[in-house]
Amino acid sequence: MRMMDIIEKKRDHKALTQEEIAFFIHGYVNQSIPDYQVSALLMAIYLNGMSTEETVFLTEAIVASGDVLDLSAIEGIKVDKHSTGGVGDKTTLVLAPLVASLGVKVAKLSGRGLGHTGGTIDKLESFEGFNTSLSNETFIEQVNTLGVAVAGQTQSLAPADKLLYALRDVTGTVSSIPLIASSIMSKKLAAGADVIVLDVKIGQGAFMKTLDEARALSSLMVAIGRSFGKKVTAFITRMDEPLGFAIGNRLEVLEAMQTLKGQGPRDLTDLCLELGSYLVYHAGLSDSLRSARDACKAQIDNLQAYETFLELIERQGGTFFDPQESLISTEVIAIKATQAGVVHAIDALALGLSAMQLGAGRVTKEQSIDHEVGLVLNAKVGSQVEEEDVLVYVYTKQPLEHDFIEAVRGCFTLDTAELSLPPLILEVIEH
Amino acid sequence: MRMMDIIEKKRDHKALTQEEIAFFIHGYVNQSIPDYQVSALLMAIYLNGMSTEETVFLTEAIVASGDVLDLSAIEGIKVDKHSTGGVGDKTTLVLAPLVASLGVKVAKLSGRGLGHTGGTIDKLESFEGFNTSLSNETFIEQVNTLGVAVAGQTQSLAPADKLLYALRDVTGTVSSIPLIASSIMSKKLAAGADVIVLDVKIGQGAFMKTLDEARALSSLMVAIGRSFGKKVTAFITRMDEPLGFAIGNRLEVLEAMQTLKGQGPRDLTDLCLELGSYLVYHAGLSDSLRSARDACKAQIDNLQAYETFLELIERQGGTFFDPQESLISTEVIAIKATQAGVVHAIDALALGLSAMQLGAGRVTKEQSIDHEVGLVLNAKVGSQVEEEDVLVYVYTKQPLEHDFIEAVRGCFTLDTAELSLPPLILEVIEH
Repeated sequence: MRMMDIIEKKRDHKALTQEEIAFFIHGYVNQSIPDYQVSALLMAIYLNGMSTEETVFLTEAIVASGDVLDLSAIEGIKVDKHSTGGVGDKTTLVLAPLVASLGVKVAKLSGRGLGHTGGTIDKLESFEGFNTSLSNETFIEQVNTLGVAVAGQTQSLAPADKLLYALRDVTGTVSSIPLIASSIMSKKLAAGADVIVLDVKIGQGAFMKTLDEARALSSLMVAIGRSFGKKVTAFITRMDEPLGFAIGNRLEVLEAMQTLKGQGPRDLTDLCLELGSYLVYHAGLSDSLRSARDACKAQIDNLQAYETFLELIERQGGTFFDPQESLISTEVIAIKATQAGVVHAIDALALGLSAMQLGAGRVTKEQSIDHEVGLVLNAKVGSQVEEEDVLVYVYTKQPLEHDFIEAVRGCFTLDTAELSLPPLILEVIEH
Repeated sequence: MRMMDIIEKKRDHKALTQEEIAFFIHGYVNQSIPDYQVSALLMAIYLNGMSTEETVFLTEAIVASGDVLDLSAIEGIKVDKHSTGGVGDKTTLVLAPLVASLGVKVAKLSGRGLGHTGGTIDKLESFEGFNTSLSNETFIEQVNTLGVAVAGQTQSLAPADKLLYALRDVTGTVSSIPLIASSIMSKKLAAGADVIVLDVKIGQGAFMKTLDEARALSSLMVAIGRSFGKKVTAFITRMDEPLGFAIGNRLEVLEAMQTLKGQGPRDLTDLCLELGSYLVYHAGLSDSLRSARDACKAQIDNLQAYETFLELIERQGGTFFDPQESLISTEVIAIKATQAGVVHAIDALALGLSAMQLGAGRVTKEQSIDHEVGLVLNAKVGSQVEEEDVLVYVYTKQPLEHDFIEAVRGCFTLDTAELSLPPLILEVIEH
């Protein structure tokens, strides 16, 4: 088999076979196929697409390039969750302890943030001493006893995905639906869960710009999951504004804790209950989605979900902080509206990048981050604000430049017209 | 400027600017842009195309990557000729001395053959001692006094083309019309001629498979030439069978010499007279194409063209050989028809590869070749053959395997149906 023939086939709109895809992934990982041939193929895939069957083969080959986590020692149904990347998205912090408190098993591998989106590991490291380098035994033991453990992604899972992603990143081939689907699903499949919920973000600042694209990606990921015998549900959710109010690691942790106590923002709470109810129902712990949702709601009301979160932090060595004291080293600057109006849009991408500029995120993988800085919105889409009302509080350790303030203010689009808000969850796509 | 943005632009079907194309070519040559980004862009160009304007910019940037031959010391109109690659194509050997004998200046840079197509330099080196490494002064002096000189292509002309071609060759991006057009034209433009004829081969075994593709390539090359102030004429010619009878270096030289004496094959003679008449006419040495053609014909009849060829060989140090003696070291094996019929097709590509197998051509650039071996057809498309008639004579230095003989015989398609032959030259495309 020759890589040239594989490139030419895809170039000429023909479907690749399982053997051809396995040959290319295997050859790329063992370095017998050079970058320049892989990038030509990636561009051909980007422009000519891949069938569902080809994407399943690609996912399979990426999974086979490394280890698959053996979760057989965990009793019960293992669940996992993935988001395509949002600003202020602290869903995992709420969802994982919530469903774990109901007996669902959450063996969670998480990543660090890059660019304008945060990572669950970064957020949890707001608790000093929080350890994400767990041994396999500790990890499995904690999932068995507490129901949830969070560890950093190991290098041995889906190594082909890391190579492909790095190459796509510099060759203009990131935003291809089959390439995104196989990348996400290969990591989820290698991580060994039985039931998976996917949060596909849509809108300005998200990978998917249109509902059609989001549907195509969602259906493809659900189909891949099904071909591997997994129960996968994809939620298409709006990212026209940040999720909740807080953007920044410790700020988001505080908001997640509020949410676990039933005092969180409406959109975040609703999303967690919705995702949670699918996980609990598909894990077989409820008869219906409705009763699963009720069970999740009850775990918030009775503080069981919150208790599970506290124990998660404690078990993994995190030191608690006093919320009142925790942000004492930052200065809080209020940015106010210069006119009255209804908030029609909040530029989540630009706010995410602003938080990154403050130090909450990193541009390159090597950078360290500041857990304390960030933004807290004081208005959401649909809010009526008056002139001089605070739009957002900036938690910073450096003086803010005039341009920065204007840019953050400019993220809020005010208008006098009325606004009817679409729901946060636009569609649910299942097998 | 970033290469990533250039890749994304072309990926998204947008036209690249002159600056972007110059940036990419310059960066590739000076190694600031890596192979894997260039191959992604080449695939995007292959699949999304390039406008005529973009192709002109690309050609310009490739020309600017190296030297441009300064032919200003040559008096008169300089002409050049290019063929997209044929089997048995010895046109240059006839055409160059033919038009030179009429006062047209032929400062010819030629290459060696690769794969199934031969190279003019290889053919001329059938004359022992023939020197193609001429100094610039000798080259120009010979063009001024004799009208024609043939030298090997120097590395300093269009170096970007060599890099791009090598990358296209291993990434499935060779057969792209804008990439082929810019590659051919950049070399012709760097070689400094004023009037250029292009022989665009069409058919099985040629780059261009259909008349539409050949027209698109021809029009594009003519447009590129015009934008550089050159008179370019493209001929679309059939390559359904080898040109003339001979395939192989010395065999082709002998056929070219016969043709220069008016005793050559009809198709080769006609093509040379046609290409020659355009060169002579556009060089301003005739009032009309018809009188230019008459002048060319006369130079064959009065042996002036042949004399010029002999002087070309002598001036560049070649030793003449006696045609009768010249092939004495090869064995000649006749391959015969096993049935009667009219020859409907002759597989030029397969015959070219068979000649290569005998040693007449090379697979890699480093290989040496045998000038004496090759094939001489004894039937052309349209010939009526009887059972046991010879189809082709094989000049070989090794015993022929049964499979080789069968494969060569199989190159001839015989049929009892009548055949109407299309003309060799299908179309002429001019500015």
